[in-house]
Amino acid sequence: MADKSRLSLNQITINAWSVREAVEGCARHGVPSIALWRNRIAEAGLAACVRMVNDAGLHVSSVCRGGMFPAATVPERARNIEDNFRAVDEAAALNADSLVLVVGGCVGLDLEEARGMVADGVAALVPYARERGVRLGLEPLHPMFAADRSVLVTIDQALKLAAPYDPAQVGVILDVFHIWWDPRVAELIAQAAGRICGFHVSDWLVPLPDTFLGRGLMGDGVIQIRKLRGLVEQSGYSGPIEVEIMNRTLWNSDPESVLAQVVERFEKFV
Amino acid sequence: MADKSRLSLNQITINAWSVREAVEGCARHGVPSIALWRNRIAEAGLAACVRMVNDAGLHVSSVCRGGMFPAATVPERARNIEDNFRAVDEAAALNADSLVLVVGGCVGLDLEEARGMVADGVAALVPYARERGVRLGLEPLHPMFAADRSVLVTIDQALKLAAPYDPAQVGVILDVFHIWWDPRVAELIAQAAGRICGFHVSDWLVPLPDTFLGRGLMGDGVIQIRKLRGLVEQSGYSGPIEVEIMNRTLWNSDPESVLAQVVERFEKFV
Repeated sequence: MADKSRLSLNQITINAWSVREAVEGCARHGVPSIALWRNRIAEAGLAACVRMVNDAGLHVSSVCRGGMFPAATVPERARNIEDNFRAVDEAAALNADSLVLVVGGCVGLDLEEARGMVADGVAALVPYARERGVRLGLEPLHPMFAADRSVLVTIDQALKLAAPYDPAQVGVILDVFHIWWDPRVAELIAQAAGRICGFHVSDWLVPLPDTFLGRGLMGDGVIQIRKLRGLVEQSGYSGPIEVEIMNRTLWNSDPESVLAQVVERFEKFV
Repeated sequence: MADKSRLSLNQITINAWSVREAVEGCARHGVPSIALWRNRIAEAGLAACVRMVNDAGLHVSSVCRGGMFPAATVPERARNIEDNFRAVDEAAALNADSLVLVVGGCVGLDLEEARGMVADGVAALVPYARERGVRLGLEPLHPMFAADRSVLVTIDQALKLAAPYDPAQVGVILDVFHIWWDPRVAELIAQAAGRICGFHVSDWLVPLPDTFLGRGLMGDGVIQIRKLRGLVEQSGYSGPIEVEIMNRTLWNSDPESVLAQVVERFEKFV
């Protein structure tokens, strides 16, 4: 059974809450870590967020998210890199374990060309992140997001993209929702040893209510979460485990009871 | 540009049509091949279907579908195999290029156990199919179907599953909707040389309207269909190219105009 000391609340799970409300919720429920989204950081102000998490004694497991590198033109791609620099600044200020990179899709682009733009974007970002002590976390998304969110879709591909860099600078984020189907998942998690800088949990519901807003609470779907956690731990990862659930029904539910369920399901199914 | 002589209509693209209507539609539009679904064959009667396609001079590119091997109990799995024997009989009677195998999901089962049941199911089916001259086509589905339709999700996995068997007995079906996202797609299509027994086209719409009923007409989405056709042909496949589009809007449209669009898009984008 996973210990609550490993639990991190990814704030998108309770989308109705501001950073302040999420921080206070974590404190009330004994959740020691939190993952913050940049749009919510912007609402609250970065300096205020830093104060809030520090005052609450919360650890920041990640900032979501940088990435989104591909674009049709050179100036657009340069603007995307600039925006990633700001994301690094925020992750540095919050002392987050990593900046999650959701690398971007391929709509309007050649798929392999988009993948090349991602590699170029990471290369441009690494020196800036290194100077500020921020680890970049490449997150392969489920292949159903290849078109619009992430041309990075397998652990294998993430490890190849990370390979040129020091593991302390560029790691990979493993989210059970995105990786559970992979026939090579066990072998690839083993290969990821030393690179894993985040582990996310939720569940795959049948039928899937929605590709983006249809993730389930742990225990409500088919993913063998505990087995995957075992593999990730065998591979040397002992950091926070983020609960990241985008789900319309949860978003419309009472935040307090959602967080109570998150804690309960974490202790029971992770 | 793909020649119309390569076009096969997968009848599910025009779900309102019976086998007779689909056969007559193909004849009217100069479509030389058809793929039939077992539920529609059952409605019309197998002998009648054989007469209809023969009278129309149509080639049957595939029968959809066998598979669905995993189940919780031994008797259920045995019944699934029995049902696959009937599917083989139908493919044999229709002289189809292959029997498509959609192998089944993992709901209620351990994922790896379900994969083992698939391997066992294929092993049980091969001798029966060989005796009747039917080639089995293992179709990897998109990973978003891993839970409920197919624990077989990559070309790599399909080739490993097929490896113990003569390529003339067990091949793979490549459907652009299911494989386009794979970072290894080019290398894997090359490895599939001699095993490819079917090639299916449609498109991936953004946003995806529905996981099952949301495929697009060729040219309406992001898939580089012509590039993939080139890879498949370099790998030695020169057989029919099936248009298989499950789409609610198309299902609710006038069948005659849908078939006209299928032909037009095939000639323009495949």
